[in-house]
Amino acid sequence: MNIEQNQIEKHNDSLLTSHQRKLSFLKEDWAHVDVESVIQKLVDFQIAIPSWALGTGGTRFGRFAITGGEPRTIEEKIEDVGLLHALNGASGAISLHIPWDIPQNAEELKTLASGYGLKFDAMNSNTFQDQAGAAHSYKFGSLQNVNKDVRKQAIEHNIEVIKHGIALGSDALTVWLADGSCFPGQLNFRKAFENTLESLQEIYSALPEDWKMFVEYKAFEPNFYSTTVGDWGQSLLYASKLGKKAYTLVDLGHHLPNANIEQIVALLLMEGKLGGFHFNDSKYGDDDLTAGSIKPYQLFLIFNELVEGMDAKGMNHAKDLGWMIDASHNVKDPLEDLLQSVEAIMIAYAQALLVDRKALNEAQNNNDVAKAQEILQNTFRSDLRALVAEARLRAGAALSPIALYRGLEVRNKLVNHRGNTVATGL
Amino acid sequence: MNIEQNQIEKHNDSLLTSHQRKLSFLKEDWAHVDVESVIQKLVDFQIAIPSWALGTGGTRFGRFAITGGEPRTIEEKIEDVGLLHALNGASGAISLHIPWDIPQNAEELKTLASGYGLKFDAMNSNTFQDQAGAAHSYKFGSLQNVNKDVRKQAIEHNIEVIKHGIALGSDALTVWLADGSCFPGQLNFRKAFENTLESLQEIYSALPEDWKMFVEYKAFEPNFYSTTVGDWGQSLLYASKLGKKAYTLVDLGHHLPNANIEQIVALLLMEGKLGGFHFNDSKYGDDDLTAGSIKPYQLFLIFNELVEGMDAKGMNHAKDLGWMIDASHNVKDPLEDLLQSVEAIMIAYAQALLVDRKALNEAQNNNDVAKAQEILQNTFRSDLRALVAEARLRAGAALSPIALYRGLEVRNKLVNHRGNTVATGL
Amino acid sequence: MNIEQNQIEKHNDSLLTSHQRKLSFLKEDWAHVDVESVIQKLVDFQIAIPSWALGTGGTRFGRFAITGGEPRTIEEKIEDVGLLHALNGASGAISLHIPWDIPQNAEELKTLASGYGLKFDAMNSNTFQDQAGAAHSYKFGSLQNVNKDVRKQAIEHNIEVIKHGIALGSDALTVWLADGSCFPGQLNFRKAFENTLESLQEIYSALPEDWKMFVEYKAFEPNFYSTTVGDWGQSLLYASKLGKKAYTLVDLGHHLPNANIEQIVALLLMEGKLGGFHFNDSKYGDDDLTAGSIKPYQLFLIFNELVEGMDAKGMNHAKDLGWMIDASHNVKDPLEDLLQSVEAIMIAYAQALLVDRKALNEAQNNNDVAKAQEILQNTFRSDLRALVAEARLRAGAALSPIALYRGLEVRNKLVNHRGNTVATGL
Amino acid sequence: MNIEQNQIEKHNDSLLTSHQRKLSFLKEDWAHVDVESVIQKLVDFQIAIPSWALGTGGTRFGRFAITGGEPRTIEEKIEDVGLLHALNGASGAISLHIPWDIPQNAEELKTLASGYGLKFDAMNSNTFQDQAGAAHSYKFGSLQNVNKDVRKQAIEHNIEVIKHGIALGSDALTVWLADGSCFPGQLNFRKAFENTLESLQEIYSALPEDWKMFVEYKAFEPNFYSTTVGDWGQSLLYASKLGKKAYTLVDLGHHLPNANIEQIVALLLMEGKLGGFHFNDSKYGDDDLTAGSIKPYQLFLIFNELVEGMDAKGMNHAKDLGWMIDASHNVKDPLEDLLQSVEAIMIAYAQALLVDRKALNEAQNNNDVAKAQEILQNTFRSDLRALVAEARLRAGAALSPIALYRGLEVRNKLVNHRGNTVATGL
Repeated sequence: MNIEQNQIEKHNDSLLTSHQRKLSFLKEDWAHVDVESVIQKLVDFQIAIPSWALGTGGTRFGRFAITGGEPRTIEEKIEDVGLLHALNGASGAISLHIPWDIPQNAEELKTLASGYGLKFDAMNSNTFQDQAGAAHSYKFGSLQNVNKDVRKQAIEHNIEVIKHGIALGSDALTVWLADGSCFPGQLNFRKAFENTLESLQEIYSALPEDWKMFVEYKAFEPNFYSTTVGDWGQSLLYASKLGKKAYTLVDLGHHLPNANIEQIVALLLMEGKLGGFHFNDSKYGDDDLTAGSIKPYQLFLIFNELVEGMDAKGMNHAKDLGWMIDASHNVKDPLEDLLQSVEAIMIAYAQALLVDRKALNEAQNNNDVAKAQEILQNTFRSDLRALVAEARLRAGAALSPIALYRGLEVRNKLVNHRGNTVATGL
Repeated sequence: MNIEQNQIEKHNDSLLTSHQRKLSFLKEDWAHVDVESVIQKLVDFQIAIPSWALGTGGTRFGRFAITGGEPRTIEEKIEDVGLLHALNGASGAISLHIPWDIPQNAEELKTLASGYGLKFDAMNSNTFQDQAGAAHSYKFGSLQNVNKDVRKQAIEHNIEVIKHGIALGSDALTVWLADGSCFPGQLNFRKAFENTLESLQEIYSALPEDWKMFVEYKAFEPNFYSTTVGDWGQSLLYASKLGKKAYTLVDLGHHLPNANIEQIVALLLMEGKLGGFHFNDSKYGDDDLTAGSIKPYQLFLIFNELVEGMDAKGMNHAKDLGWMIDASHNVKDPLEDLLQSVEAIMIAYAQALLVDRKALNEAQNNNDVAKAQEILQNTFRSDLRALVAEARLRAGAALSPIALYRGLEVRNKLVNHRGNTVATGL
Repeated sequence: MNIEQNQIEKHNDSLLTSHQRKLSFLKEDWAHVDVESVIQKLVDFQIAIPSWALGTGGTRFGRFAITGGEPRTIEEKIEDVGLLHALNGASGAISLHIPWDIPQNAEELKTLASGYGLKFDAMNSNTFQDQAGAAHSYKFGSLQNVNKDVRKQAIEHNIEVIKHGIALGSDALTVWLADGSCFPGQLNFRKAFENTLESLQEIYSALPEDWKMFVEYKAFEPNFYSTTVGDWGQSLLYASKLGKKAYTLVDLGHHLPNANIEQIVALLLMEGKLGGFHFNDSKYGDDDLTAGSIKPYQLFLIFNELVEGMDAKGMNHAKDLGWMIDASHNVKDPLEDLLQSVEAIMIAYAQALLVDRKALNEAQNNNDVAKAQEILQNTFRSDLRALVAEARLRAGAALSPIALYRGLEVRNKLVNHRGNTVATGL
Repeated sequence: MNIEQNQIEKHNDSLLTSHQRKLSFLKEDWAHVDVESVIQKLVDFQIAIPSWALGTGGTRFGRFAITGGEPRTIEEKIEDVGLLHALNGASGAISLHIPWDIPQNAEELKTLASGYGLKFDAMNSNTFQDQAGAAHSYKFGSLQNVNKDVRKQAIEHNIEVIKHGIALGSDALTVWLADGSCFPGQLNFRKAFENTLESLQEIYSALPEDWKMFVEYKAFEPNFYSTTVGDWGQSLLYASKLGKKAYTLVDLGHHLPNANIEQIVALLLMEGKLGGFHFNDSKYGDDDLTAGSIKPYQLFLIFNELVEGMDAKGMNHAKDLGWMIDASHNVKDPLEDLLQSVEAIMIAYAQALLVDRKALNEAQNNNDVAKAQEILQNTFRSDLRALVAEARLRAGAALSPIALYRGLEVRNKLVNHRGNTVATGL
């Protein structure tokens, strides 16, 4: 289904007075700032939607009653992301996962996607599951495996994913490895590292010149003793040894308890090795909850480092890093959940853009800690939602995406159209 | 020193237009709510200041250059809290610690305090340190000690603290025990519990009828293997066995990583056994940072449970629980730090007061998880600072306490008056 | 398949000389102790095997290549546990899970089981997954659900499980609830507790007089914000309100990071409310690894409290608590993994039995911490494996269970017999 | 005081029969291994004692009743380490801390130390505390400080420490920085890194050619929001940028919860950047407990990686890494505590030396996870204490150091001689 432009306009019209009131108030508050440029940055900022996050998620204990109307094909997944993008104007890309989304006809898909204003973001390979008919199992790892044939199978899979990506106009490969071990003694850490590096080098050499490789790290799960790309330090080691096209990818849920993620982000930017982001939120582990639902202040602090660090390097916020959601929607409608995530990310970005950098630098140079806190919390405490809404308005999207989604009964229509379908993927 | 009422008025006058603008905007936004009643609750809400938090804090690695002008006596501590209360109108109580603040003349102190509009909040005993001249050491615990004489000394100390409290008009005793062990085998957990219970019972029996005993728990530190009142479950066991005057006290920093403190609060309220709070914030352990400086959303979620649970029991927000800050000011001016903590607490309280309970109940009854999140985040995302400021204004305090504190150069004056003094306490 | 007694004898004969040498050495070392009584306690100690742990486990990211020869039916599961028991003489019970193991003919099953020397341990209900054809989904909880009909369905399921258990001669029901929430605001903690309590009361009232109800707690997963029976304090609250047949069940993996589980065990024993155990090991969360594979010293410390606490209450080690493994075998042959778990548990139990309690009490009474550590570590550092082996020998089982299992090529035979089967369950 | 050789001999004589019995049993068990070479490695292995660990430690809540007889001067500290070394033959080095141990006459100290068979291990600088009379405070960091003068003071202090070390024959500088921040916004992470790197470079350039610089990392404390050398990844970044004399130093207590330290060790060895170790144990944070007192299996797993990784690089176990204890003795006699730590370390080392590497490699190459676990646990479960005792015997030290220490009433004699002295340091 499509959301018609006139449906959006009608919705916006009904909210416009209230929105304008809030926006003017905000503009008055921030009169000393170039608010227009902030809004433009918000318009430009796009967060990719992963194809596997469009259905109801689950845990190892199973998946509960599905939402219904979930996309059955890559085409329907594109349609869903198209719906999101129509609603929020900020989800203009889809990140595909092979083999869950093997494109049969790349040109047709590109046409379909571009009809929704969508691009193909980073491609995701999968060597954390066995595929039917595969010669080798990844039970004991893929790129790290002691068996060269297993490694070869995993390398070839990654190269195949690159090829699909080239055909679709993507320009990045995200490698998330579940490789690791469940018990002390199971593997030799050094050899596992060396095997993984060698495997990554082969994949790297198959990357087009203008592509990036994102090496994602994760502290634990599905391996419960060690992970072979386990933290940012390890990812950075791989990325440095691989070369200038290789970068570290940060997934917010992939850390040990209490990790200071914003510091990691700042250092990776300093090293020129931050590649991209997987947004989600968590309380215990890789809980894959809606971005901003548990620790919204942390999300702001991360964006504070991103904006500061990218500006220091002269980077383009919208283009020079890969932005993607990676969440699991176990108890919410996946599309509503994604709308909430994008909204939370945009708010955090807006807050970071409005931080008074000059005053902050000054407070830091004076070791005026109380003042530094006041400066950060002042933007965080400010209600910037109208700025984000204005960005949507200018992008032709909805002032209140979830309200419109519910008002239009989008989910019911999807169920009517598709039935009680379950999305492919996890 | 004193802050004169005309200094406050002058400060408020200079900010009044801007404040009114924000307040009117807020009132319009929340026109469907009894905002006046919310403001009145904010006016009534008072957070006690601990006498030991008025100086520069430190760690086991030492204390860095002090702030200067720190209070040397109990009278100067009262003066400092008086300054805070004049500035924010919400710090109308001081929580004393024995033996750091032994009152020589209770009546004079009461007069002094009441001159600043201050009451004496919960009294704090100290059996986590040895005192010069004490017959016994608490190296191996106090109320848990295998040696009856040590327990007796600790019991008598607590009873003495109660007596001081009676003289000052306090009505609660906070018992924080560092008791525990550093190594497996050091103590018998059951016997340690039984000794502690028996000791607490003796102290309990010395409590006046209208007093409360707060049994504080802590996961770890200064003992690093076990703590004898280690979590809310243990504290509740003690409080239940002791009787109706005994309650659990929650200190935000005293939990294992990732604990859901708001759920603990809700259950203790359900059981009628929540006694009070020690506010602070933390990232790693009992970091004792400024309230709201690390996890402001968590602080709101806790207040959300407090308001809901107290209302369900028909409790008086301002009177029926003990509210206190317990923080350490290692890198900020202690008075500024306390002003920031109180502000963060008041904002969280205001947010909780504005949660649309009816809509939230409805969303919960419909398992509409996305909606429930929207409801909570809507008040959290709203900028309610003008409500808190208005409460201060009505209380005769400052619209912007830190700005006035800095504008009046209070710290400099304290240094001039007192010198480079170090506060007693930790 | 069966392991024949003569196969075991042949195996034992080949190892006997070496075993005797080690045993005599040990007996000499512990000449001051009643070693015979220790061995007898080891002979008597039985650890139940959960029916769902006989197949290859997985994570939310999938299940890797299976081991093959996994049990397809409840009868084959009993056969597998029979194999284990023949090998180690310490796995004389099976814990069934409904609906994964619905007994069709209880009498036949009892006969089958008793042929292997097996009893039916605690029955496990399942309201953490939806069952095909069920009227209601547990997506938003079962016993906590806001919808009375859902609660009713879950209550009735538990009562049905009790009935199955009665028919099989079990005498306990383990209730593990995944109930909780994934997002702040999703549920009202107090109402969730009250609903859960009311539901448990209905189930409790269906318990035969000589049955126990085990209320299992878990910190997180599959819910990632709150769990309605989230820690021992909550479980104890339920168990206390329910009555004398209700107990807390401790699963080693169900705690927040760094929790002192041995202290929890000691306090629950003190309160007369410890019901039983789920053994496994973990590094990060509920990793469900082989018992003793990550923190063998912690396992010993837990048994140290169990032995001390049960002896203090005059409890029978073998009978008065429920002992069960609850692990997931993702990268090992499940039967080998279970043999390793049982071995680790028996060693920890043996170590705890040999702790010099008198000397330990004395060290504790003298606050001689270094000595207390020496006493505990002395038994932990001692190699007591020959004692455990001797207990097996006397029980007619194998001196080296895994060696015999491998020597007899049991897995190959199971694969030949059953094929590449996948066990039912998680 | 000194322990006379004949006192040791008398003690050993009394235990010799029992020791020989255990040793022969062990030798028979490990007949397939070159046990003599293992014993020789144990003889050669020396663990440095930090000068600040010879007195009673404390926490931020204070220090409890001291042990008495604590060393008041650097000479007495050397005497204490001499006592330890006489007792265990494995503590042949002392690690000094400036300014707590400023040597007045290096030659005399060297003579004194060599009389006890002691060398001077890595020198430790201190910029985590302010020193009386210092021009600048480190309240807001030392090498990271925004103020160049503060950095300069800290750099010069480190260079002075190097000079002291040269005079004493040391060949390494350990730089532990408490630098970091307590609140979001307090510092700019990138600039803090850059300042720190620049400062370290200046210190590095003052290092003699044959010296090493150890860059120690720590996750948190005394800063509670960020630490500027916060994890191994950051330390490795510094060490790599500094050059070939710079290495990472691993302190076991300086990690986030659940970190896999053994994997970190393996990777640092792989990179040729592991410099040394600070041994201790912990349950919650940097608890600084006796090595091996909480997680002895982890200690073994770390040594397992050390032995494997050093052998793979052809490194000399005894000489090519810096081995040091860093613990705090809050509830034990410091000297007994240190004896227990050294014993636990030696046992873990012995266990690692006896791992059947060939079998382990084979199991790893076959992905035989159960077997790999058996191999590791077989040496861990074996009682190798007689090997460590034999190494002591051959070194002329005591078979049972703590028993002799207590038998000779060393502590009483120290108290008699020195009085109720408190050691300098933390």
